[in-house]
Amino acid sequence: MSIKLTTLDNGLRVITDTVPAVESIAVGFWADVGARHEVAAENGVAHMVEHMMFKGTPTRDAAQIAEQIENVGGQMNAYTSREITSYHVHLLKEDTDLALDVLSDIIQNPTMPDDEVERERGVILQEIGMSLDTPDDLVFDQYQETAYKGQALGAPILGTSDIISNMSRDTLMAHVERFYTPQRLVLAASGNLDHDYIVSKAEALLGNLPVHEGRDAAQAEYSGGEIRVSKDLEQSHIILGFDGLSRHDDDFYAVMVMGTALGGGMSSRLFQEVREKRGLVYTVFAHHSPYQDAGQMLIYAGTGPEKLPELVPVLCDEIMAIQNNITAEEFARAKAQIKADMVMGQESMMRRTNQMGKHLIHYGEVPDLQKKLAKLDSLTIEDLQRAAKRVFSTKPTLAGLGPLGQLESYDKISERLAA
Amino acid sequence: MSIKLTTLDNGLRVITDTVPAVESIAVGFWADVGARHEVAAENGVAHMVEHMMFKGTPTRDAAQIAEQIENVGGQMNAYTSREITSYHVHLLKEDTDLALDVLSDIIQNPTMPDDEVERERGVILQEIGMSLDTPDDLVFDQYQETAYKGQALGAPILGTSDIISNMSRDTLMAHVERFYTPQRLVLAASGNLDHDYIVSKAEALLGNLPVHEGRDAAQAEYSGGEIRVSKDLEQSHIILGFDGLSRHDDDFYAVMVMGTALGGGMSSRLFQEVREKRGLVYTVFAHHSPYQDAGQMLIYAGTGPEKLPELVPVLCDEIMAIQNNITAEEFARAKAQIKADMVMGQESMMRRTNQMGKHLIHYGEVPDLQKKLAKLDSLTIEDLQRAAKRVFSTKPTLAGLGPLGQLESYDKISERLAA
Repeated sequence: MSIKLTTLDNGLRVITDTVPAVESIAVGFWADVGARHEVAAENGVAHMVEHMMFKGTPTRDAAQIAEQIENVGGQMNAYTSREITSYHVHLLKEDTDLALDVLSDIIQNPTMPDDEVERERGVILQEIGMSLDTPDDLVFDQYQETAYKGQALGAPILGTSDIISNMSRDTLMAHVERFYTPQRLVLAASGNLDHDYIVSKAEALLGNLPVHEGRDAAQAEYSGGEIRVSKDLEQSHIILGFDGLSRHDDDFYAVMVMGTALGGGMSSRLFQEVREKRGLVYTVFAHHSPYQDAGQMLIYAGTGPEKLPELVPVLCDEIMAIQNNITAEEFARAKAQIKADMVMGQESMMRRTNQMGKHLIHYGEVPDLQKKLAKLDSLTIEDLQRAAKRVFSTKPTLAGLGPLGQLESYDKISERLAA
Repeated sequence: MSIKLTTLDNGLRVITDTVPAVESIAVGFWADVGARHEVAAENGVAHMVEHMMFKGTPTRDAAQIAEQIENVGGQMNAYTSREITSYHVHLLKEDTDLALDVLSDIIQNPTMPDDEVERERGVILQEIGMSLDTPDDLVFDQYQETAYKGQALGAPILGTSDIISNMSRDTLMAHVERFYTPQRLVLAASGNLDHDYIVSKAEALLGNLPVHEGRDAAQAEYSGGEIRVSKDLEQSHIILGFDGLSRHDDDFYAVMVMGTALGGGMSSRLFQEVREKRGLVYTVFAHHSPYQDAGQMLIYAGTGPEKLPELVPVLCDEIMAIQNNITAEEFARAKAQIKADMVMGQESMMRRTNQMGKHLIHYGEVPDLQKKLAKLDSLTIEDLQRAAKRVFSTKPTLAGLGPLGQLESYDKISERLAA
């Protein structure tokens, strides 16, 4: 087993995966906080904090942070999702100390000078503008707001222009103090490394991180319903979604495999029927993504407005069919796709580290590839059919963006989906 | 040296890179043909052929092609660029034979049934629609058309709706016959493999591929100038570009390093000045991309329309400054970034294979990482300054998309860029 976990005295977990064959190390922090931990008036604070962490500490200004990592050719990045915030670096193994020093400094000691807050506000307002101009970003935000009405889980990760325009330094600093605490942080690393060395560095750099209470996210309450936003576009973008399963649900692996068979690759039902047999779309897919206490099963398609009357009934037909007639061949293929992806994904140090950091936060235990593969092997077609029935019997969420004159009513679509 | 090259009797080259530490193999064909080899009336044929190659052979229909690869969890993909068309698969090493069988079959024996041509026409028309709805795709096509007016190199890779609506099966088949010939094809593979075995398979599968004349692309003639397309968007998308250098130019490495210092990362001049110091954009970058006989040096930025009057002069100032004052620290950092990216990029089998296939087509020789690193090490700051002066003294190309009322005139921008 190449993965080792050590918990520091203050609760911070250090997890590493030693891969001697590579020349690099991917290392970073995964924090148990994302957009769903926000209160409504502060929507976007998790993501804005992620940006502000790069804007300076008492010993490094924003330019120095970027320069120190890039001086050695390191690639530094960060992301904010609805449940996780992560900061990470991929660089050559001889620069491990530098990566740990810089990353530990920026997440513990952000100074957030007022002028930097002002400038970064401008950057994020541009990021929001870019997202509004990108239809296949925008329709996903609209979907999320409709699936989880009035909840933090339904709010956009970037926040809104209004809230970002007024976000104060105090709010940003309070978010850091509340959530960037040892019990919510994982330091994860993969590559050419020594676990004990990483742990000793972590003890020295992070041993004094103060413990705070934090705040749990509210329980997700899937609402469903519809949103239609008319816009002058070439394509109509459609998401049809359902209440999915938590990653802790007994049927989680089953719903993942079922989703792959429905719309996970070139051989999937949706790709074959909607794109290959009918030529209705360039992009169509189904995907299940889990949260701690809920999940999202959705289908996305982008098509010409005049093709909506053909597209939507086909999507509904496929959703109905897969609840009853998954074949042994499809089942085996979807499993093989997921297994090969897990195994080949190990070749990327950054992906390996990201999986490991997220897994430890979500499950509280060391990821075990063999255990995951065994879980996939233990599934039956009946498990997939049951999972399909569970998710597709829930109230649909419909999001449409673009020219929508020919998109049929929500009631009509719901009728098609009633058994 | 882990890379080996064998040329078959018919001229087809087989290049492999053995990496025993991984469990997978990435394998595919790289063809010396892209959108710039097209005649104007057939613009989009290279890309449409790429799609049609997956639509069936005498022994496999479209569904079987996808299923056979995905049955073993393989990931199959393809791309068409202006100079290259590629078809590739990433899968577990025990499925090497399958990958070679399927890939060799689809590129040698496409049947292109009429009904499949009709359906794929629909798919590509949707792909064009999606591209028209994505501002930071569209502005790059507009830029290209302006930089290389009236030339195949300036035409969109996807073609236009009009041409695609009328593309005939004969045109598609003629493109395959003309360009998919042994002397234009490279079979490349990286991963857990045996070179001699791959060569023997290639001999059996590809030894009878007929030789045809092909057709050379016309010499690129950079034209420069401007295009402004007003559109109701949140952001104004701007590209400011120049005549760059061929990958065979003595200054090619110098211009690549200079471009990285100007706008290649978080520590680059543009990122620091435009995003970090002024908060004007979320995205800004500079990039040099080479062709066989030309190159493209361009800067992209997306900003709110009211910020254009501040943004454009800053871009021009940075372009002027970097021709004279690159520091030793910036020079070293840009080199380190490119070198680390080359080394760490080796960890991805797919990226490694893609680099190798393209390199062999473009340079006619086996890629040598140590030689590339040595070339970078032999550069001087004077080389970078000279390269900067060479590209930035050419006639600018300006492409703008979005609300452009506050974008100053092309003449005014040209004036700012005159020494």
